[in-house]
Amino acid sequence: SMDASPPPASPAGLSAFVAVSQLLGLTLLATTGAWLGRYRGGVAWHSPLQFNAHPLCMVLGMVFLQGDALLVYRVFRHEAKRSTKALHALLHGLALVIALVGIIAVFESHRAKGIPDMYSLHSWCGMAAFVLYLLQWLLGCGFFLFPGASFSLRGRYKPQHIFFGIALFILSIASCLLGITEMLLFKISDSYSHFVPEGVLANTLGVMLVAFGLVVGYVVTREEWKRPPLAEELALSMDFKTLTEGESPGGGS
Amino acid sequence: SMDASPPPASPAGLSAFVAVSQLLGLTLLATTGAWLGRYRGGVAWHSPLQFNAHPLCMVLGMVFLQGDALLVYRVFRHEAKRSTKALHALLHGLALVIALVGIIAVFESHRAKGIPDMYSLHSWCGMAAFVLYLLQWLLGCGFFLFPGASFSLRGRYKPQHIFFGIALFILSIASCLLGITEMLLFKISDSYSHFVPEGVLANTLGVMLVAFGLVVGYVVTREEWKRPPLAEELALSMDFKTLTEGESPGGGS
Repeated sequence: SMDASPPPASPAGLSAFVAVSQLLGLTLLATTGAWLGRYRGGVAWHSPLQFNAHPLCMVLGMVFLQGDALLVYRVFRHEAKRSTKALHALLHGLALVIALVGIIAVFESHRAKGIPDMYSLHSWCGMAAFVLYLLQWLLGCGFFLFPGASFSLRGRYKPQHIFFGIALFILSIASCLLGITEMLLFKISDSYSHFVPEGVLANTLGVMLVAFGLVVGYVVTREEWKRPPLAEELALSMDFKTLTEGESPGGGS
Repeated sequence: SMDASPPPASPAGLSAFVAVSQLLGLTLLATTGAWLGRYRGGVAWHSPLQFNAHPLCMVLGMVFLQGDALLVYRVFRHEAKRSTKALHALLHGLALVIALVGIIAVFESHRAKGIPDMYSLHSWCGMAAFVLYLLQWLLGCGFFLFPGASFSLRGRYKPQHIFFGIALFILSIASCLLGITEMLLFKISDSYSHFVPEGVLANTLGVMLVAFGLVVGYVVTREEWKRPPLAEELALSMDFKTLTEGESPGGGS
């Protein structure tokens, strides 16, 4: 049942939404850089500016790359599932490494300045997001990337993986908003209420983080934009079903 | 095609998740009350304590009642759709009124103390959540509650209504987390980093807000728990389809 016809084009609208998400994502990074560069002295590792690596790494890793990793099944909807899956795992892995660098930056900077760790709601939410994200990545690799998990087990875990993946992406963005609020109240608490440019810029960064989450969330949850199974995947799935009489994990992912 | 068999029981697990959500919701309210009562002098309208009505109203309206309004299609899955819909609109309406009281509380308290309005990321996110929530409620009433909108128009708006409904619920919770962080940094900025009980209590409130959002989000997005169409709804839908040849809005909601 192999189908030789050319793959169908992407649905109207999807490409536009993906383009907007990428513009938003790059603007997020530029705005974070502008905030740190213009108002917070820039970023440097072995210096009192080490802290500033934290927001930059978290926005890059936990928001931009995590969001793009969620989008790969929509963007590469007509590629083979195995390569799309590898790219999904790779982007999440890269996001985790960059986030780890960002976390080291804040712990080392706290130690240098004698500030206690992990007392704020930002740190609780952010650390929960990171640890659960790492766990989700390990579970995802174990279930979907390495052989061993049965067809029916994969099918049962998949909806959980998707739900918690989206939830962790949202929690990551919420943690960034908390971090922006903390940093503004630490650094410009006296002038924040007078609408100084730094406050307005950082608030705008927060609004753009929400917008990025909305666009990515819309693309990945829209029913009509789910990845259609390739003809050969459908055939394989049916062969498997006949052989094992187990559950099919379904086509769209 | 009326079916006289007794309605099927709710799926296993759904009732447990709904029970947990309600326990969490009530604990949220109790924890907010405990924070304000024990550490912030309590709540009173015509007094310097007027501000404290703000967090209480927002957690009650924008989180607990908004969340419960999302759950009614799962909890009353075998009731007639028209009455479930009315309850959904009523709970959201009540949430809006209570949230409006909470917003008045903060504006009046700012005026009494000479504090500027709408400068913080919390106020931007919270006000956006409230205004868009009101808009979503008006659109929902216009499309689904009052006659006039065609069957096919309802069907096309429904996925948007669901997506933005969940997004606004999440944005409401994120705004609460920002409010908690602001309040702690305004009131106990010197002792917050020493893990004082007020800080730990308020952080825990934040974690419970996230947990409430997770449980409600899981219940409303889980495919197997979607509301099945009643036999008479299916029959009506098919009659309509034959009559109008329009799109069916589909069964689950």
